Amino acid sequence: MRVATYHYGGKRHVGVVDRRGGTVSPLEVPEADAETGILCLIGKEASGIGAPIALSDVRLEAPIPRPPRNIFCVGKNYFDHAHEFARSGFDSSSAKGAVPSEPIIFSKVPECVIGPEEDVLIDPTVSESIDYEAELAVIIGTGGRGISKDRAVDHVWGYTIVNDVTARDLQGRYSQWIVGKSQDTFCPMGPWAVTADEIDVADTAIRCRVNGETRQDSNTGLLIFDIPTIIATISQGVTLIPGDVIATGTPAGVGIGFDPPKYLEPGDVMEVEIDGIGTLRNRCKRRGT
Amino acid sequence: MRVATYHYGGKRHVGVVDRRGGTVSPLEVPEADAETGILCLIGKEASGIGAPIALSDVRLEAPIPRPPRNIFCVGKNYFDHAHEFARSGFDSSSAKGAVPSEPIIFSKVPECVIGPEEDVLIDPTVSESIDYEAELAVIIGTGGRGISKDRAVDHVWGYTIVNDVTARDLQGRYSQWIVGKSQDTFCPMGPWAVTADEIDVADTAIRCRVNGETRQDSNTGLLIFDIPTIIATISQGVTLIPGDVIATGTPAGVGIGFDPPKYLEPGDVMEVEIDGIGTLRNRCKRRGT
Repeated sequence: MRVATYHYGGKRHVGVVDRRGGTVSPLEVPEADAETGILCLIGKEASGIGAPIALSDVRLEAPIPRPPRNIFCVGKNYFDHAHEFARSGFDSSSAKGAVPSEPIIFSKVPECVIGPEEDVLIDPTVSESIDYEAELAVIIGTGGRGISKDRAVDHVWGYTIVNDVTARDLQGRYSQWIVGKSQDTFCPMGPWAVTADEIDVADTAIRCRVNGETRQDSNTGLLIFDIPTIIATISQGVTLIPGDVIATGTPAGVGIGFDPPKYLEPGDVMEVEIDGIGTLRNRCKRRGT
Repeated sequence: MRVATYHYGGKRHVGVVDRRGGTVSPLEVPEADAETGILCLIGKEASGIGAPIALSDVRLEAPIPRPPRNIFCVGKNYFDHAHEFARSGFDSSSAKGAVPSEPIIFSKVPECVIGPEEDVLIDPTVSESIDYEAELAVIIGTGGRGISKDRAVDHVWGYTIVNDVTARDLQGRYSQWIVGKSQDTFCPMGPWAVTADEIDVADTAIRCRVNGETRQDSNTGLLIFDIPTIIATISQGVTLIPGDVIATGTPAGVGIGFDPPKYLEPGDVMEVEIDGIGTLRNRCKRRGT
């Protein structure tokens, strides 16, 4: 099932997107619950479903407009990207070599989440090296501590797409990554979420295009640390909660992988595409214009 | 003003603690607001105040039992601690040398906050090198982006004490620090908060005792990056929100500063004391016992 959060008729709704991605059928949930986006469907069921509306008549929002706490993210989780990042000069955590022997976990503040078609704001007074990162994101359904790799999939509600936009200069400058990763608007999410049964994350294509040029083209099966390993690693001593979002890392082809680097500029259009989910599209805009 | 969150008569309340720390006078706020602890006093005023109750008759809770998002923390922010940490072998971000040239910002999940006298749970199957860190924590009152150092104090609601409990092995293993810092129960906070006018953070003593032995004994005036610099650094591109908590770093004397290291063990009692605030006391307990 594909589930979207969207704005229609002056209110936020959640609904089921049809397979062709042409319509959304509103799910009947209390209005206050709908404010949380698809969080209201985790562990609960809608009481009914309404007639389909054309997607072109609604404004899609991030499936989880405001995650319950910072989004967990995994760094350097594809071999080819680990190498390009190590070469870039911005890797402030590279003491252990290009390819990590254990998952690198960091976070983005929940307030930097934006929806499909919302603008990523570029503020050249703060950063001049802003980069895209196409990522598959896991949405936790059932929380828990000490989740084993074998049981990890039982805790997954579904998946969505995250563009882990990053200010490379700040990522390097502050050593730990949260500041460079949490700049306002730096977490496009969407265009909707899919339940776990919809895709085989061990073999799903992931791509990113900038202004139509394919920059990233990989497969989520190439994760160094797979999703069960990531869930087991975090939850070993940190209780995961329903609605936690975990962005699993990005493949090669980010801006700093090029020589010279291809940083984002106002007007650039990013499209992150994951087969079986959809395409998350956002434009970059200079802040204040 | 000293403001506490506490449990009394089956409910959570917020109240004003008298100067001697002997009583708390309940503030009149809506019951649902009191559930958020002192967050309900940020930007709002109580409608009245009730008769004082002996503190010994209430159970103090963390002033902000559940911060609105991950707590921001500053790493290696006292010279003497920066050196002891660099020598410890656990510093996964030491590429730039012992003393950072820019603030190191990381986070702890909000769910690891516990109150005064609550137990810090030690799970030897997860970590065998758990450490204490006495810290002054800033509570943001007025949010904002691009806050200048000059204006930073205007955004501070007040202060509290945080014990930034850390699993050193996990801090080192995962390179970025969130996992080692966010283990369940690893953020004792309290015993209450004080409004910004109560203390001069440029000259306030901070100490930590373990089982009565003084381990840390310093002054918040020795911060490498002072509070205005920290606020300006984070908010340059990340909008701060009311209720954000920023733990400002710990002085020398943590367990890994000793040879051999003095890690926490079940039964250990930690007391973090900051002049002008109070003493935050927590016992360590083996998980599951």
